[in-house]
Amino acid sequence: MKRLEHLGIAVADLAEAERIFTDVLGVAPYKREEVKDEGVMTSFFQTGESKVELLESTTHDGPIARHIDKRGPGLHHVAFLVDDLEAEIERLVAEGYRVISGPKPGADQKRIAFLHPSDTAKVLVELCAEA
Amino acid sequence: MKRLEHLGIAVADLAEAERIFTDVLGVAPYKREEVKDEGVMTSFFQTGESKVELLESTTHDGPIARHIDKRGPGLHHVAFLVDDLEAEIERLVAEGYRVISGPKPGADQKRIAFLHPSDTAKVLVELCAEA
Repeated sequence: MKRLEHLGIAVADLAEAERIFTDVLGVAPYKREEVKDEGVMTSFFQTGESKVELLESTTHDGPIARHIDKRGPGLHHVAFLVDDLEAEIERLVAEGYRVISGPKPGADQKRIAFLHPSDTAKVLVELCAEA
Repeated sequence: MKRLEHLGIAVADLAEAERIFTDVLGVAPYKREEVKDEGVMTSFFQTGESKVELLESTTHDGPIARHIDKRGPGLHHVAFLVDDLEAEIERLVAEGYRVISGPKPGADQKRIAFLHPSDTAKVLVELCAEA
């Protein structure tokens, strides 16, 4: 596993959350990007080599909308960058970990997959690789 | 704000979570450290320049025990490294952000403070500086 690529945060109001994290991080987001398949608008901040990704749902029933309905806004997932997504998935599946989504295209020129949080201490772990 | 220093994860069983994140990250934790004032045993993984910090409660009523009672285990806080903790707190307080805890000693040779999650999009944000 290469490094912590980004931390995903589910937000109810993207503009308000952008204002807050601009204050806290002392930098503005470097881009917004819609991921239509996931029903989200994202906003990215660079902080050292890792990023903070804010996610606002653009639908009423997408994964972020369902997360906020169930748990409220807040920390959502952590993404680790790997060199070879398929090889990393194969390695983890052989260890008994389940992939719940992907491999598929994600934001920020990545290919992504999610592990089942029941297998990873209730943390939603994304694996990502450069597309 | 310098960079994403670590991601804190509240866990019910530290040994089990260490096994899981050793699998996922492909590296073993580099240390355990007890923070008695917080009632937690921590375990740290290095992943790029950022760390993953697992936190298991050592008490029945500490902040991690209360978090798990209320929300279950999972993602708990994100810590950003700053050069000057007091100056950063002063800057954010002037912007209207509230400090709920600290500055105080934390794990991993740091001084730490937490912002009020109601001010930061329901994310528990830790600011930390080298002690």
